[in-house]
Amino acid sequence: MRRILVGMLFVTGCLTAQNSLAQGAQSPARTAGPGLTGSWLVTVDFFGTPLQIPLELTQQGNKLIGSIGGDKLEGTVESRSVHFVSDDGQGSKTDFTATMDLNGTMSGTIVSVDAADGKSDTHKFTAKRVAERVTSAPKMHEFTPTVFYRQFSPNNAPVLTVSPGDTIHTTTVDAGGKDEKGVSRVLGGNPETGPFYVEGAAPGDTLVVHIVKLQLNRDWAGSDDGIVDRGVNSDLAVKIKDNRNSVRWHLDTTRGVATPEKPGEHMARYSIPLRPMLGCVATSPSFAQAPPGTGDSGGFGGNMDFNEIVDGATIYLPVRVPGAMLYFGDGHAAQGDGELNGNALETSMDVTISVDVIAKKRIGGPRVESATHIMAMGLEGSIDEAFREATSSMAQWLMDDYKLTPSEVAQVLGTSSEYRVSEVADRNAGVVIKISKERLAGLGAGK
Amino acid sequence: MRRILVGMLFVTGCLTAQNSLAQGAQSPARTAGPGLTGSWLVTVDFFGTPLQIPLELTQQGNKLIGSIGGDKLEGTVESRSVHFVSDDGQGSKTDFTATMDLNGTMSGTIVSVDAADGKSDTHKFTAKRVAERVTSAPKMHEFTPTVFYRQFSPNNAPVLTVSPGDTIHTTTVDAGGKDEKGVSRVLGGNPETGPFYVEGAAPGDTLVVHIVKLQLNRDWAGSDDGIVDRGVNSDLAVKIKDNRNSVRWHLDTTRGVATPEKPGEHMARYSIPLRPMLGCVATSPSFAQAPPGTGDSGGFGGNMDFNEIVDGATIYLPVRVPGAMLYFGDGHAAQGDGELNGNALETSMDVTISVDVIAKKRIGGPRVESATHIMAMGLEGSIDEAFREATSSMAQWLMDDYKLTPSEVAQVLGTSSEYRVSEVADRNAGVVIKISKERLAGLGAGK
Amino acid sequence: MRRILVGMLFVTGCLTAQNSLAQGAQSPARTAGPGLTGSWLVTVDFFGTPLQIPLELTQQGNKLIGSIGGDKLEGTVESRSVHFVSDDGQGSKTDFTATMDLNGTMSGTIVSVDAADGKSDTHKFTAKRVAERVTSAPKMHEFTPTVFYRQFSPNNAPVLTVSPGDTIHTTTVDAGGKDEKGVSRVLGGNPETGPFYVEGAAPGDTLVVHIVKLQLNRDWAGSDDGIVDRGVNSDLAVKIKDNRNSVRWHLDTTRGVATPEKPGEHMARYSIPLRPMLGCVATSPSFAQAPPGTGDSGGFGGNMDFNEIVDGATIYLPVRVPGAMLYFGDGHAAQGDGELNGNALETSMDVTISVDVIAKKRIGGPRVESATHIMAMGLEGSIDEAFREATSSMAQWLMDDYKLTPSEVAQVLGTSSEYRVSEVADRNAGVVIKISKERLAGLGAGK
Amino acid sequence: MRRILVGMLFVTGCLTAQNSLAQGAQSPARTAGPGLTGSWLVTVDFFGTPLQIPLELTQQGNKLIGSIGGDKLEGTVESRSVHFVSDDGQGSKTDFTATMDLNGTMSGTIVSVDAADGKSDTHKFTAKRVAERVTSAPKMHEFTPTVFYRQFSPNNAPVLTVSPGDTIHTTTVDAGGKDEKGVSRVLGGNPETGPFYVEGAAPGDTLVVHIVKLQLNRDWAGSDDGIVDRGVNSDLAVKIKDNRNSVRWHLDTTRGVATPEKPGEHMARYSIPLRPMLGCVATSPSFAQAPPGTGDSGGFGGNMDFNEIVDGATIYLPVRVPGAMLYFGDGHAAQGDGELNGNALETSMDVTISVDVIAKKRIGGPRVESATHIMAMGLEGSIDEAFREATSSMAQWLMDDYKLTPSEVAQVLGTSSEYRVSEVADRNAGVVIKISKERLAGLGAGK
Repeated sequence: MRRILVGMLFVTGCLTAQNSLAQGAQSPARTAGPGLTGSWLVTVDFFGTPLQIPLELTQQGNKLIGSIGGDKLEGTVESRSVHFVSDDGQGSKTDFTATMDLNGTMSGTIVSVDAADGKSDTHKFTAKRVAERVTSAPKMHEFTPTVFYRQFSPNNAPVLTVSPGDTIHTTTVDAGGKDEKGVSRVLGGNPETGPFYVEGAAPGDTLVVHIVKLQLNRDWAGSDDGIVDRGVNSDLAVKIKDNRNSVRWHLDTTRGVATPEKPGEHMARYSIPLRPMLGCVATSPSFAQAPPGTGDSGGFGGNMDFNEIVDGATIYLPVRVPGAMLYFGDGHAAQGDGELNGNALETSMDVTISVDVIAKKRIGGPRVESATHIMAMGLEGSIDEAFREATSSMAQWLMDDYKLTPSEVAQVLGTSSEYRVSEVADRNAGVVIKISKERLAGLGAGK
Repeated sequence: MRRILVGMLFVTGCLTAQNSLAQGAQSPARTAGPGLTGSWLVTVDFFGTPLQIPLELTQQGNKLIGSIGGDKLEGTVESRSVHFVSDDGQGSKTDFTATMDLNGTMSGTIVSVDAADGKSDTHKFTAKRVAERVTSAPKMHEFTPTVFYRQFSPNNAPVLTVSPGDTIHTTTVDAGGKDEKGVSRVLGGNPETGPFYVEGAAPGDTLVVHIVKLQLNRDWAGSDDGIVDRGVNSDLAVKIKDNRNSVRWHLDTTRGVATPEKPGEHMARYSIPLRPMLGCVATSPSFAQAPPGTGDSGGFGGNMDFNEIVDGATIYLPVRVPGAMLYFGDGHAAQGDGELNGNALETSMDVTISVDVIAKKRIGGPRVESATHIMAMGLEGSIDEAFREATSSMAQWLMDDYKLTPSEVAQVLGTSSEYRVSEVADRNAGVVIKISKERLAGLGAGK
Repeated sequence: MRRILVGMLFVTGCLTAQNSLAQGAQSPARTAGPGLTGSWLVTVDFFGTPLQIPLELTQQGNKLIGSIGGDKLEGTVESRSVHFVSDDGQGSKTDFTATMDLNGTMSGTIVSVDAADGKSDTHKFTAKRVAERVTSAPKMHEFTPTVFYRQFSPNNAPVLTVSPGDTIHTTTVDAGGKDEKGVSRVLGGNPETGPFYVEGAAPGDTLVVHIVKLQLNRDWAGSDDGIVDRGVNSDLAVKIKDNRNSVRWHLDTTRGVATPEKPGEHMARYSIPLRPMLGCVATSPSFAQAPPGTGDSGGFGGNMDFNEIVDGATIYLPVRVPGAMLYFGDGHAAQGDGELNGNALETSMDVTISVDVIAKKRIGGPRVESATHIMAMGLEGSIDEAFREATSSMAQWLMDDYKLTPSEVAQVLGTSSEYRVSEVADRNAGVVIKISKERLAGLGAGK
Repeated sequence: MRRILVGMLFVTGCLTAQNSLAQGAQSPARTAGPGLTGSWLVTVDFFGTPLQIPLELTQQGNKLIGSIGGDKLEGTVESRSVHFVSDDGQGSKTDFTATMDLNGTMSGTIVSVDAADGKSDTHKFTAKRVAERVTSAPKMHEFTPTVFYRQFSPNNAPVLTVSPGDTIHTTTVDAGGKDEKGVSRVLGGNPETGPFYVEGAAPGDTLVVHIVKLQLNRDWAGSDDGIVDRGVNSDLAVKIKDNRNSVRWHLDTTRGVATPEKPGEHMARYSIPLRPMLGCVATSPSFAQAPPGTGDSGGFGGNMDFNEIVDGATIYLPVRVPGAMLYFGDGHAAQGDGELNGNALETSMDVTISVDVIAKKRIGGPRVESATHIMAMGLEGSIDEAFREATSSMAQWLMDDYKLTPSEVAQVLGTSSEYRVSEVADRNAGVVIKISKERLAGLGAGK
């Protein structure tokens, strides 16, 4: 069976929530009003798995209206007792009964009825208000990592809690787990620094990660001389059958170049400019999903291996668990498009990033912004599918944020698309579509 | 960076081990001889991750020879002290020093030196003998599941330990987590029965799972009316934009057919034969890999959704952790090729299977055998890649087990290949190549 | 620029015609009424290229109504003068002025105006009535080929004209151009017997080709020991680097098997059942398209290399030029799925087929029918795309001919689809979706 | 059956010739020496199809040695009688007997024997010397086209004969067949200017086409608002279901920008820089292949739709017929990567190009060079395959021209590859791999 069909088997609201998330729909700003009015996050205990659903309530006297996971709801509040019923518009109703405790949290029971056989499921749930953003002076956090994780998991304890607007200065080990001194700290496979808990980030929001500065902190990088299968036809396979040996590069930060430590006969004068980048930046997927390994990628970002995630870039990632749970690592001193060797110039890194949260902004997949371009990324099992998803994601972006009609979207894509193949070395291939801000400046009705 | 490049960063032996596993190389039968002579499993504690490497020792006086992870080793044993050094043939050496305790387990320290910078890493390890198969009367186990897992993980506690040759009779919940009474038992997403620990199964072996009997144990199945994206072009996408609704099927075991409970106008007389199958059968991947969710598939099997995994079929899966850790679930009352709806006829199941172990038989991916055919499966990110891997896997099978030359392999494949598209509904697509046993009967030199 | 955008640059009607053809829309039966009433085929001379557009006229007094290429038209007829104007519904009008000659053919001038700049194009055209089917006794044609064509072209002179219902008995040379005596008759590359002109077949119709009997007429077939790239991963590429040698097979029609003439050590007892099939069956593409080579395939059929095109099979192909222009060839004594060697068991053949025409039945691509199944074929640049097109084509078939709703289509496909990978050896890959007639028997409202 | 298996069925030499061509092997410079010594082109009349094979002869007294299509030959010359036998190294021999006529052309008979059954084929052949390059003053040709072709065919009569080093100034019509005055000149579908016959270009050479200047010669371009299927997922398909309408752009050469003539509400200020390019540049495929339509692409170039084929670019294409037969057309005023609309800004063009020939330089597919980069192009049925072929082609280029070892190739590709998706709108998708000349400057042993 295909993935989870939560909707068929549980509350319709969950499914709707996932869908509207996927479609990048946008909602009004987060609010907290009188009584229960405001934005909440419901957490249902589903046989041990926490399912999280955004809840919007408006209290008018003792009446409640609003929505849960996109489905309309109606209810009442009497003293500390809360009761409401949601309706998925197709005959399926879900009943919520809860009590408010002293610190303003709801705890109660959810009963959903399967329309097909009338059977009901009952589960416990809690609901907490999603914090409004408190404007405070941005802080700079110095953080020295002591553990490194090998899965993008919501279950790892946060290593640090930060607020939107804050900056973090820290380090990352290389893809093989070695630090700036060349000391092994963890099993290889892109071990990550983090997770960082971002205050106020809630499912349905977008996390903003700005790369302030990536600095090399040792003078060598590990790589190899393989070519990954996606780039190799049968003739080439025979010729490179003895490749896949380790190649170590010297990183010369003074001259700003990398050179092979033991160059072959024809490469004695070959050097490449240093251009430090992060191979991995990720939020955590939802609790309902198996935590991906740190070699994997998807809508949550992850091991994107895109060589424009450099100083000055901004990455937008969907928030799917409270606090977003930000991870990063897998620094590359430099990387050609596609990461053809399987390993780029893998090295440890000194990292400075800042974070922010856009409340109730839903995006379907990773987006990147540079000084000159907006970029949407497709990460799929083939380059063809990654191309399809990147293009469709950018089309959605132009409809959502630039309000273009479908015809206008096509005209802009046809004349202004730029494509990069970001990565072909992992389970997912990555394709990036870019549109220059110069072109975008001409768009918009009233602008 | 791409996946794990353990070799570059740790012991070369690990990498070699993985490679020879992938290549399906075959080794002689498992033996236990005098002194330390025999098959061992080394477990290195690599910053918390257990890395497991097969070790073969031959003791001659106080000399030790053998191999670890495919690399040659030499050493000595003095009283309870064991010491040996492995060499990867490219200048990288790894040093093992251990003490035998009273119950015959080694505990010690492994020191590996990085050839590039001469730096060394030190880790603790233990080594245990891999049990020889003890021939005993096969047992029948009655097992009633109380927990259901949503990841193919080596970290879940085994629910039952069985021996090669044993039979297990148990039940599975449907893909949505509902049992034979229609009661929700776990969050949906192919929750599995298991893991079953198979005595003596060690990394490098092959687990054999024989489907004795699959019986339906309730009278309905859940499905839907979607068509997954891999089957939908732009024209069809517009026509089916309102599909993806639940469809419930009545299972009539007396007549042996399934019919929609509320058939559309043209389907009042439409029925399909019941043909119960298991969507998921899996061993656990290694500890070094993030445990896949139960919607995923790969070399370990998993959510293969192949409609020939029915009564009488035998599935061969690689063993990658001690005990193999067998999982199964996701029963379908019937399924068309490809599982085009995303959901087949999802239902709970009464399952009888038997297990066996082929020692030191390494296979690269899932194989299936029926009364009439041998079948190799490719599970990859596109149908094209799945086709390529299935075909290459069958070619390897014919070389390994039928000793065909490359030219003979091609002649047999060209004249006898049969292909099925097993599944297109999940992250991996599946393609199966089949060769009939009638054709195979004509092969073989001395047969 | 992409293919032809006739519509943008010429008459809108052409484009519409192509579209409705592609969508497999169905029209009422062909009729010939009083005056000009009836079905016509317009041929526009577009700078030397004949563009052909179906025309439907109804004469009421001296008024004309009807449609051309799907666009509505209105006009008048006065004595021998005919004038009408078509409108594409988007402001673009095309004006037709013609004179009837004595044998009932229109000749005249077409003027189309480009809505964008008001510029007009003028071309000459003729229009002939499309013959109604005359019911006559089916004939058996004995035909001995003397030329063999290497393109599916409408420009080759027909070798024989036949009527719907007729049967043709003839021979084909093998893919390399050798005949039943082993004599070279033409350069290799699937040289074809034909083209056969089928009386009354007009663009927009469907040609029906029934395989009455395929008989081997020599005792050997040529093949090789390659494996085509679509089935070969990097490991296998290295192993088979010296393959691609010729392999000759002995065809034993008495025992009904083929065996390699010089079997390798392990194949001395290997034999495969003879199952003669045609690798190529094609109609001609339209005059506007470059004639495809006989190694190519597409909506017109062509080099499909599907091993169920055997005795008893019926192939449905779109008619795109007058007379359909039927070609066939590339006989295989037997072939595994996919034609993995690149060459199947290539041999000459004794062929008996019958033809028929379904007037005004438009299909998007090749369909095949056997005693037990209906089958739709996708022929595209990757297996993934071929799968998508095959599935979408079958969905359309179920909507068109079985009147299923989109929801019903999905339920039938999900439960009854069977897939074959028909061929991976050529530029296009082929995937076939099959549905058994037993399942289809349960469908249909009033049936 | 797959393509042509000439080798199996005819002279082995032909096949070898094709293979060495594909592998990009390089040969010494063309020479003409005493007697018959020098480079010849053999043309075999194979049942009407001219097969062309390069022949190298060295005359020593009355002995002949050399090679034909890569196979070694030995023979004799007596007065006007020539006789030689080639051997494919696998037991297959081909016998050539000819007479020299007065103007130095051989005419004779070729007899090849099929090793499998001893049967022989006999064909007539002629052989002409391939002209050495005569250094003469480069000429500028003014050429006004009167016909435009819709196939890249060797059978169209050359419109002009030019010498290596010459420059051609001419015009092209737009993809729809309209010229600089907006007048239709030919049916649409990328009609081409040419073919130009380049003196001395012979199969096995490389044609060099340098874009001197592309100038717009009218003030509008045609396009549309579609998005081609390769960029559209199911969600987007539903949203753009009413797209695919014509969009006309105004070309303002003074400001150097294009703007939609009737911009939508949000695009009133949208403009894109003019960057004239040629969508099509091609040599003719060999006589043995069906002439491709002008919407197609392949090793011969063709409809590449790559937006870096602009002023200053140099294109390298394989020569497969005498004179190369150069075609070009399909001008775009500007185009985004991929040509997502299907139509770029299609317009007529004023074109100045120069041509040259590199004798005996064999390349496998199209290469492009700009002031800053070398670029190899993959043109295949999926983006994945185009990526694979582009990468493998560049690897071959680095081995051939930069003499890199397989390990060095991988290191350079891994660190310096840049990828573009050039085109997704046609039957073939195109991927381009680029390497900057700055990087290449550091390569080479003795340089």
